[in-house]
Amino acid sequence: MLKENLENLRTKGALVHNITNYVTVNDVANILLAAGASPIMADAIEEVEDITSICSATVINMGTLNARTVKSMVLAGKKANALGKVTVFDPVGVGASALRNETAKTLVEEVKWSVIRGNISEIKTLALGSGTTQGVDADVADVVTDDNLHEAVGFAQELSRATGATIAITGAIDIVADEKVAYIIKNGVADMSKITGTGCMLTALIGAFAAANYGNITAATATAVAMMGVAGEIASEKAKGEMKGTSTLRTYIIDEFSLMTGETLEARKKLQVFQDCNFSRIVIFQNWQQVATVNS
Amino acid sequence: MLKENLENLRTKGALVHNITNYVTVNDVANILLAAGASPIMADAIEEVEDITSICSATVINMGTLNARTVKSMVLAGKKANALGKVTVFDPVGVGASALRNETAKTLVEEVKWSVIRGNISEIKTLALGSGTTQGVDADVADVVTDDNLHEAVGFAQELSRATGATIAITGAIDIVADEKVAYIIKNGVADMSKITGTGCMLTALIGAFAAANYGNITAATATAVAMMGVAGEIASEKAKGEMKGTSTLRTYIIDEFSLMTGETLEARKKLQVFQDCNFSRIVIFQNWQQVATVNS
Amino acid sequence: MLKENLENLRTKGALVHNITNYVTVNDVANILLAAGASPIMADAIEEVEDITSICSATVINMGTLNARTVKSMVLAGKKANALGKVTVFDPVGVGASALRNETAKTLVEEVKWSVIRGNISEIKTLALGSGTTQGVDADVADVVTDDNLHEAVGFAQELSRATGATIAITGAIDIVADEKVAYIIKNGVADMSKITGTGCMLTALIGAFAAANYGNITAATATAVAMMGVAGEIASEKAKGEMKGTSTLRTYIIDEFSLMTGETLEARKKLQVFQDCNFSRIVIFQNWQQVATVNS
Repeated sequence: MLKENLENLRTKGALVHNITNYVTVNDVANILLAAGASPIMADAIEEVEDITSICSATVINMGTLNARTVKSMVLAGKKANALGKVTVFDPVGVGASALRNETAKTLVEEVKWSVIRGNISEIKTLALGSGTTQGVDADVADVVTDDNLHEAVGFAQELSRATGATIAITGAIDIVADEKVAYIIKNGVADMSKITGTGCMLTALIGAFAAANYGNITAATATAVAMMGVAGEIASEKAKGEMKGTSTLRTYIIDEFSLMTGETLEARKKLQVFQDCNFSRIVIFQNWQQVATVNS
Repeated sequence: MLKENLENLRTKGALVHNITNYVTVNDVANILLAAGASPIMADAIEEVEDITSICSATVINMGTLNARTVKSMVLAGKKANALGKVTVFDPVGVGASALRNETAKTLVEEVKWSVIRGNISEIKTLALGSGTTQGVDADVADVVTDDNLHEAVGFAQELSRATGATIAITGAIDIVADEKVAYIIKNGVADMSKITGTGCMLTALIGAFAAANYGNITAATATAVAMMGVAGEIASEKAKGEMKGTSTLRTYIIDEFSLMTGETLEARKKLQVFQDCNFSRIVIFQNWQQVATVNS
Repeated sequence: MLKENLENLRTKGALVHNITNYVTVNDVANILLAAGASPIMADAIEEVEDITSICSATVINMGTLNARTVKSMVLAGKKANALGKVTVFDPVGVGASALRNETAKTLVEEVKWSVIRGNISEIKTLALGSGTTQGVDADVADVVTDDNLHEAVGFAQELSRATGATIAITGAIDIVADEKVAYIIKNGVADMSKITGTGCMLTALIGAFAAANYGNITAATATAVAMMGVAGEIASEKAKGEMKGTSTLRTYIIDEFSLMTGETLEARKKLQVFQDCNFSRIVIFQNWQQVATVNS
C-alpha cells in the first residue's frame, strides 16, 4: 500500500495550495517538492479562490494566523469544497489563544475537511470547541501510549464520524482513522520534536498524498505519516553517524523524501491496520488486545 | 567577463532592498551575503522609500503578494526609478490568478525595470498582459529547447525593446537579452527544480551583480545566471557524492556562492554571447545556426 | 556560571513568545528548540496578550515590522510587563527608516525591557532617539575595538541606568552590561557576519536563558552571547574542515546548540567579568587597563 501510494505521488504529482505559517513555510515547500508534489503558497483574499481552483489539494495551517489570513482560509476552504478538492486542516496551537479557538471552530464548521491533523492536545481542543463535533467526548489522555491507545483510537473514530474527516493524531505513536479503518504507526524518533515544522510538513504532505491517491484518502494519510516517521529514523541515523545535531536532522529528513524508495518505506514501516473496526471507547483493554492480535 | 563581474561584487558590495515572498526570503538573504552583497528586507509602505534610498538595488518578487505589499512594491519601484537605482522584477506565478496578472501589469506599467526575470511561461504571460508590451507577440513555445531557441531569443529581444529592461528567461536553457546583445547559458542541473527558491535567489543576485556592475547590466545579469547554474552543478556533484538529497543540494548551492572563485566560474561556464544581434523571429532556423557559429 | 545557566535552561525549559521577522524566523524557532526552549511565534493583535500570558519570555524583533505588527509589539510588551515576564527587544535596522526610529522610540518608552540587544550602531541610534534615554551620550565609535572598549562599556552602563535594561552590544567584541556588572566576550568568528540571523537567534536565546535564570538576567544574557560565539567557532571549524561554505555554517551553528555541553562552553569561553564596576566614560584608558587586570 505505502509503496503504491508513494509511486502514485511521484508519477502523477500534485499541485498543493498552502495557506500556512511563515515559520516553516520554506520547509513545507521543499518537502513537497522532494516528495514529488508542487507547492503554491498564496494567502491574499483576492486570489485564494483562483489558486485553489488550479490545485488538487488545499492545505490550511493556522500557525501564524491573523485577521487577514483567517478570511482567506475560510474562502479557500469553501472553494475547495465546491470543487471537490482534497482539503487538509492543521489547527496549530489551538487552545493557546481565543483567536485560535474561534478560528478553528469557524474552519471546522464552515469547511468540510478531507483530513484533520494535529497532536492529541490540539485534536482534543478542536473536538471540545467545535459546534459540529458535539457529542464527541474529548476526555482522553494528553499523551497517547500503548496503555490508552484504544481510547485514543476510539476518540479519533468518533471525531471522524462527527466531521466526516480522516483524523490524524500524531506524536510518539501516530493514529490515522476514519469511521471504519484505523492505522497505528510507530515510526519516528524523539529528536523530531527538537525541530520545528515536522507537523507542518506532514500536514502538507498529507494533502499531496491524498490528491495523488484520491480513492483512499485515509490510506494516503497513513502513508504520509509513516514516511515522515521512516524519514526521521533514517535521517537521525545519518546525522548521529556524522556527529551532527538537530538542524542537520531537519535537512536530512527533507533529503529522505527525495531519496527514499517505496521498498525502503515498506521494509521500515511499523504500521498496524485495523479494517472494519469500530473502537468504541467503552471496549475494555482486554478486548483491544484481542482485536489487535486478530488484525495485525 | 564573469570573473570581473564577480570580483566587482565582492570588492564593492551592494546593499539590496528586497520586497519578496516569505517562502524563500531566508535563502535570498543568505545567498546575497554569500555572494558578497548585503540584504535588507522591508515591505511596510511607511518605510520602503526610506529603505530604497539607502540601497543600490531594489528587487521586487511578487511570490506571496497581498494588497498591502502590492502598494509598497509600486512605491519602492517608483522611488528607485527617481533615484536611478537598479530595479529587478520577478513576476512569480503571474498567470495563476487575476491578482497576480493585475499586479504584474501595474508594476510593468508604473515602474521602469532594469531587469525582468522569470520562466518562459511567466515572461510570456507578462508580455501578453501588459499594456506597455503591446506589439510583443508572446506566441512562443512553453519550454525553451535548442529547436525553438532562436524564437525565444527573438521574443526576449522584442520584450526588451518594448520595456527597456534586460530580459532573463530561465529554465533548462537560460536566455539573457537586451535589444543588442543576447546570452545563452546552459549551466545548471535538473534537480534544481526540486528545491524552492532558485528563481527567487537568482532574481536577488541579479540585483546585486547589476548594482556592482552598473555600466553593463545585461552582462551582470548573465553573470548571475551563469553562476547560479555553475553553483548548482558543483553542489549537485557534492551532494550526490555524499548520497544526499535535495535539501542538502539547497545548502550546497548557497555554500558555493561563498566558495566559488572567478576562475572556476569562467572554467565551468557554458555561455554563448551574441553581440550586436537582432534575432527577428522570422529568421529561419538555418540562419540561426549560422549566426550562432559566427558569434560563438 | 555558563554551565549552570545552560543546564538550567535544558532542565527547566522556557516557553518563548516571539514577534519577529519573517526572514530568520525559522532559524529562531529551531535554535530555541536546539537549546532546550520552546518557541511560539504569534503576531496577531487579537492573540498576542493570550500568548504572552502562557509564555515565560516575550521577544520583540522589529526586523520586518509593519503597521499591524507594531501595534502587536506594544501590546505584547505591556502585557509581559504587567505579568512580570522577561522582555527582550532587538531594534533591527533602527536608523534605516523613520518608521523604525519611531517604532523603536515607542517601544523603549512604552515597554520596560529586561534586555535590549543590537549592534553598536543600532544601540547608539536607540540611545539618541528615545525620550527615556535622555542624558545618554551616544558619541561612541561605530566599531567596538580594544582601544575604545572602555568607552563603549561606559555607554552601555549609562544606557542601562537610563532604561533599566541589561544592554547587549554585539559585534567582533561583545559587551553585556547593567549598571553594576559588565561582561566582555570575545568568542565568535568573522564568517558569522556572512549569514543572516545570528543576531535574531541570539536575541531569542537571550529570552530563553533569561527566563530559565530569572534571578540573574545579565549573567544569563552573557551566557547566551558566549554560547553563540562558541557555537560559531566550533561550527566554523567543522565547516572549514569539510570545505563547506556559509550555509553549512548556519546549519552547524544551530547543531551546536543541540550538541554542546556546559563543559565545552566553559572551556572555550573568552569572557571577562567586571563586578561592581562603573565605567564612567571619562576614565582614562590607563585606568581601564588597571581595572581589567584587577577584575579579570
